[in-house]
Amino acid sequence: NTQANKTRDLDQIISTSTILEKTYYDVKTHTSETLDWFNVLIAQTISQFRSEALLRDNLYHSLDDYLSNTELPDYLDKIKITDIEIGDDFPIFSNCRIRHSDHNDALGSGRLEAKIDLDLSDTLTLGIETKLLINKPKLMTASLPISLKVSIVRFSGCLTVSLINASDELFDTDDKAETTIPLRDEDGSSAKSGGTALLFSFSPDYRLEFQISSLIGSRSKLQDVPKISWLIESTLRNWVMERCVEPRYQLIKLPSMWPRRKNTRGTTLSGDKTTSDD
Amino acid sequence: NTQANKTRDLDQIISTSTILEKTYYDVKTHTSETLDWFNVLIAQTISQFRSEALLRDNLYHSLDDYLSNTELPDYLDKIKITDIEIGDDFPIFSNCRIRHSDHNDALGSGRLEAKIDLDLSDTLTLGIETKLLINKPKLMTASLPISLKVSIVRFSGCLTVSLINASDELFDTDDKAETTIPLRDEDGSSAKSGGTALLFSFSPDYRLEFQISSLIGSRSKLQDVPKISWLIESTLRNWVMERCVEPRYQLIKLPSMWPRRKNTRGTTLSGDKTTSDD
Repeated sequence: NTQANKTRDLDQIISTSTILEKTYYDVKTHTSETLDWFNVLIAQTISQFRSEALLRDNLYHSLDDYLSNTELPDYLDKIKITDIEIGDDFPIFSNCRIRHSDHNDALGSGRLEAKIDLDLSDTLTLGIETKLLINKPKLMTASLPISLKVSIVRFSGCLTVSLINASDELFDTDDKAETTIPLRDEDGSSAKSGGTALLFSFSPDYRLEFQISSLIGSRSKLQDVPKISWLIESTLRNWVMERCVEPRYQLIKLPSMWPRRKNTRGTTLSGDKTTSDD
Repeated sequence: NTQANKTRDLDQIISTSTILEKTYYDVKTHTSETLDWFNVLIAQTISQFRSEALLRDNLYHSLDDYLSNTELPDYLDKIKITDIEIGDDFPIFSNCRIRHSDHNDALGSGRLEAKIDLDLSDTLTLGIETKLLINKPKLMTASLPISLKVSIVRFSGCLTVSLINASDELFDTDDKAETTIPLRDEDGSSAKSGGTALLFSFSPDYRLEFQISSLIGSRSKLQDVPKISWLIESTLRNWVMERCVEPRYQLIKLPSMWPRRKNTRGTTLSGDKTTSDD
């Protein structure tokens, strides 16, 4: 198998140099490229999402539904949403450049990846109110109001993006993530081609800034508890780390871009019906 | 409804100008951007696909299976594949610029789209052999060998790409393509958010070049029949036109890019198991 890996790596080196040659890309000298067009398209999507979220208080209702249907621990009262801010700025992608992957993993060494800087300065806030129920020594001995407000105010980091052609097994959602990826099964039997997948992850030096306030206590004596802020912040940081910070990455299966009748849309300019029946 | 459309269009104009301002993009003055990084990533995927297709004659076998299982008309003998060329060059995307959509369609006027030039010079060939069976006046009166070879040698055109946030109804695969798209249902009831979709189409002035040869007749007297070439060429051109040439477009639902545990992969550099259990 080590021999097979070596052969595969050699194939990869030859093939990457051909790819770079035929796409006129010299990794050493090519200047980084702008992604202003991409920023516009992404901003338009986010803007649409925000209009819809605001239009009918969609976001509030879904969050509220989610919180109502989540089983809470004994010591917490019902959670009430006090604050939602969905931001009004957009992520800025820039400085895109192709590099050889320095990971020697199951996907093969030396693959070509795009590195992209991402910067988002915006305020995304969720504020909630609840009560801490103290059930000892007996039920409802006391209840302590809690008011929490968490804002993400800044995210910046270097994003690594690549595309792979992957077999179906790669997309198994069972926790087999750590097994070797069967991109090439040696027996010529089943040629399951699962299509293309997008891989992305953030460099470990990403920056994520929060503003968290936590007030606990009776109305007359509210108190900020830094420990709670710290707890929430580290939970959120772990969430990001565990999912998409190197060496972890997100693998997302992309749909086929092959033009198909069922994906065809389009009316004539005058608003006439399409004539797609023939 | 016309009033609603007007309000929507006005909203759109305000929102597009905000988007352009916040992403620092001036449609009038911004120079077009390169997509060299994208060409590399796409080329890598195509190259991988080709290796797999060649490795086990995958493509030949799947085409052969497909042809064997396709019900052919009475007058055609079994089809034999004589030639497959999968090309060895890559598409080059370039000259990417943001423009206001000039379509006043169900998706709203003035949306922002990216225009991208695409050029592919490569040879993709399929060659087949079969026999024309002449069953009149009686069964197997005669059989006429046919040999066909179709190559696509050039494709170039201007690609329009955009992203929309779309409700689920938009993705209905039934032939409801021509109905108005319910991006905004007026009653605040169901807020089906189907996620983001990619839209793409080619300008009508695209260029598609073929090389087709069709030989018919007994071995001693093979004859090229231009009419058959013409028939095949127009069938292929229609196929493209009907799917992805303006005003037709392809609408492809994209998966969510939100980091999720089930999409998380990643081994440590030394090949150790991941520790994603916590």
